[in-house]
Amino acid sequence: MADSEALPSLAGDPVAVEALLRAVFGVVVDEAIQKGTSVSQKVCEWKEPEELKQLLDLELRSQGESQKQILERCRAVIRYSVKTGHPRFFNQLFSGLDPHALAGRIITESLNTSQYTYEIAPVFVLMEEEVLRKLRALVGWSSGGGIFCPGGSISNMYAVNLARYQRYPDCKQRGLRTLPPLALFTSKECHYSIQKGAAFLGLGTDSVRVVKADERGKMVPEDLERQIGMAEAEGAVPFLVSATSGTTVLGAFDPLEAIADVCQRHGLWLHVDAAWGGSVLLSQTHRHLLDGIQRADSVAWNPHKLLAAGLQCSALLLQDTSNLLKRCHGSQASYLFQQDKFYDVALDTGDKVVQCGRRVDCLKLWLMWKAQGDQGLERRIDQAFVLARYLVEEMKKREGFELVMEPEFVNVCFWFVPPSLRGKQESPDYHERLSKVAPVLKERMVKEGSMMIGYQPHGTRGNFFRVVVANSALTCADMDFLLNELERLGQDL
Amino acid sequence: MADSEALPSLAGDPVAVEALLRAVFGVVVDEAIQKGTSVSQKVCEWKEPEELKQLLDLELRSQGESQKQILERCRAVIRYSVKTGHPRFFNQLFSGLDPHALAGRIITESLNTSQYTYEIAPVFVLMEEEVLRKLRALVGWSSGGGIFCPGGSISNMYAVNLARYQRYPDCKQRGLRTLPPLALFTSKECHYSIQKGAAFLGLGTDSVRVVKADERGKMVPEDLERQIGMAEAEGAVPFLVSATSGTTVLGAFDPLEAIADVCQRHGLWLHVDAAWGGSVLLSQTHRHLLDGIQRADSVAWNPHKLLAAGLQCSALLLQDTSNLLKRCHGSQASYLFQQDKFYDVALDTGDKVVQCGRRVDCLKLWLMWKAQGDQGLERRIDQAFVLARYLVEEMKKREGFELVMEPEFVNVCFWFVPPSLRGKQESPDYHERLSKVAPVLKERMVKEGSMMIGYQPHGTRGNFFRVVVANSALTCADMDFLLNELERLGQDL
Repeated sequence: MADSEALPSLAGDPVAVEALLRAVFGVVVDEAIQKGTSVSQKVCEWKEPEELKQLLDLELRSQGESQKQILERCRAVIRYSVKTGHPRFFNQLFSGLDPHALAGRIITESLNTSQYTYEIAPVFVLMEEEVLRKLRALVGWSSGGGIFCPGGSISNMYAVNLARYQRYPDCKQRGLRTLPPLALFTSKECHYSIQKGAAFLGLGTDSVRVVKADERGKMVPEDLERQIGMAEAEGAVPFLVSATSGTTVLGAFDPLEAIADVCQRHGLWLHVDAAWGGSVLLSQTHRHLLDGIQRADSVAWNPHKLLAAGLQCSALLLQDTSNLLKRCHGSQASYLFQQDKFYDVALDTGDKVVQCGRRVDCLKLWLMWKAQGDQGLERRIDQAFVLARYLVEEMKKREGFELVMEPEFVNVCFWFVPPSLRGKQESPDYHERLSKVAPVLKERMVKEGSMMIGYQPHGTRGNFFRVVVANSALTCADMDFLLNELERLGQDL
Repeated sequence: MADSEALPSLAGDPVAVEALLRAVFGVVVDEAIQKGTSVSQKVCEWKEPEELKQLLDLELRSQGESQKQILERCRAVIRYSVKTGHPRFFNQLFSGLDPHALAGRIITESLNTSQYTYEIAPVFVLMEEEVLRKLRALVGWSSGGGIFCPGGSISNMYAVNLARYQRYPDCKQRGLRTLPPLALFTSKECHYSIQKGAAFLGLGTDSVRVVKADERGKMVPEDLERQIGMAEAEGAVPFLVSATSGTTVLGAFDPLEAIADVCQRHGLWLHVDAAWGGSVLLSQTHRHLLDGIQRADSVAWNPHKLLAAGLQCSALLLQDTSNLLKRCHGSQASYLFQQDKFYDVALDTGDKVVQCGRRVDCLKLWLMWKAQGDQGLERRIDQAFVLARYLVEEMKKREGFELVMEPEFVNVCFWFVPPSLRGKQESPDYHERLSKVAPVLKERMVKEGSMMIGYQPHGTRGNFFRVVVANSALTCADMDFLLNELERLGQDL
């Protein structure tokens, strides 16, 4: 075999390859893109797990399947998947479908390369540098470093690892055992990745000192100061503060100037987890929410969230110009980062990261940005704020909606108070009963497929809804629909 | 503004969205897929970084661009990118373009969801489970756990983190400071991610004890035994051995049975980094290379390499059935993993990982597998071995090729000995001069765009080429081309 011919697979038949891909792309356009973003269609088609398993016939078998069967499978996968690009998908910190970003993603997949060397990713090595430069400029830095990471959690971990390496370069080789106990600080509203990261990096979750947040969810700088003193008194060495710009549930922005003052006084690395809120830097109207971010040592910013670049697109930005990433993460693998290459090997980014192969995450953002310009992206951000405000004002006009607080971002948190509970705020089981409303409504909306909104308990508060106004295709009509639909779904409760 | 209309972007205009995407897809099919896999076209079009920057006009500006400009940009991105699907791309441990996997990737991108909950990824939560089950079955396990990670390096880190957590569950909370010094063992031929991971996880690179490899690159079990004794004598606690199935440069397979015996004797976690070699498990003819893998505690396997599923597709497989992943990595974020959901929340995979959002990496593999069946994939693996063997035998017939060793896998390592060095093996500067040949030839092939082959120094050996025979579209004619082309490029040296 194999004497002179490739296997009789599609790979050897350009016509069949093209036919397959055009057919699949047709299904994608019709089902995922057109229907998937149309308000006349469902946002999801709920099936119980056991039924869905049957419908999908997931088992991988010895024999391959025909082209026709494969196309049917593509249709089924799309049909039963949640349409996160749909205007009624309010469930997560991402929503919507940007066609240019999607175009960038399709090109990325067709080129299927790894971002580690200029040799095999010349376009993307240069492009990543330029996109990072642009993001840094929005933070307020004219120089610095950075890298795209597989999600905000890992961006946050990188920041913690860089901060400890900067203070104790020895730990790369010798580990944490020889160091004093370290302490890092973040508010109780921070993303859970800070805790996960502390465990993963060997620091342990005990090293995370939880700073108080005020009633709006913002870190209290005075308590940060107090916690630092306490940690020192216990013999720990504070090394990093992780502030949050745009908390997950409430959408709160920590007061960065005041926190930066504390960090400066104590010589601590300031990391800003702006995974969610970073995109607000594009808005002249709202960027004041992140005032002080230019004083950070590192910033995590996920354009896959509010900018809808597509999962994953998470930048870690650094003020550092001393090649800290490479010193902290490098291992100089000789088979990949040869020093006798015929081009400047400083272009090879692979030793800046703890991954080896690394996806290209810059093209989708770059292409969308080229198409929209700063101005187009700014309009999107501003519109999201306008629509969130519209939603809040409409809620105030209706009986059944109780805001958790006035939002300062595009997370709108509220209770839907069903008819049977209205006016019963004083009854002893009010909060318990109210807490049970959101799960019921969630089940109903998902099973009808009319919309998806997340809910959660939060501190002492029982379950409330969090609507995320992120989809750039949203209109006031969608906000009205959301309110009407909650009233309809909850009218018998 | 925004009173009742969406922004005047494409998002509000389904016809324009469809037109854009169809136009981009046309470019992708013509330029990236057809030309990108045709031997009549170049595998790369080399440009110096400064010139490429000019050609790409990377700067992101205030104003957006027209559709026509965007299409030109898409063409330029593809034109100057390396064609990793091209049959003459031998440079990396991945090559080729599987149309079904690409179809799966395009669907994945169009659905743009995160793998963390059944709620927003019902199809993919079930599909990931099934794909992992299939991979585990090939390892030889009828039960167990696992997860897709962003690349093999992170899969390896997960294994190390799980092993230390299993031994010292306290370290999640209390960190490494309270533990004795830990030691893990891997051969000098291991992937560099083991070192990087040890640093990142806070263990430090000193915790990695480097075990000898034999002349074929295989770990020497007797030296492993010796190193364990030495570590213990120094007061360290051995906890993990990372064996490699398919080393990066030589393609060597560590003797797993003998290593498993050592691990069993000492009660150590056996991790097998089969990122590269794991796919050989599909071949009845060659899977003996991994004999003993069923005795591992964890296996890392990257179907984005030899199976060409597309970057990234890396599975961490576990023999564990005690929900170790969730116990080790979980943080029970109440906003995402609500316990009062209307479905079985055990389906939510998000707390198994240290990421929050996580890409869908299963569909591309699943769809390709459905189309090919075990049988089709097995044929691919077998053909790669056959072609690697063909290449080796052809080399032996030619004067200018000196094998580093007989390969046991599809990495073919050799020196090209140019005319001026033939018969000069005894001259004192032979090795120094030979070492300079590969970089020169590499520059020439890349600048001509005729093919791409990686080279590296290795131990005491000077630069040699490593041809990776992974692309399923390869034929003997491509192997002949490779040899002829090296002779042509090196005839004046």
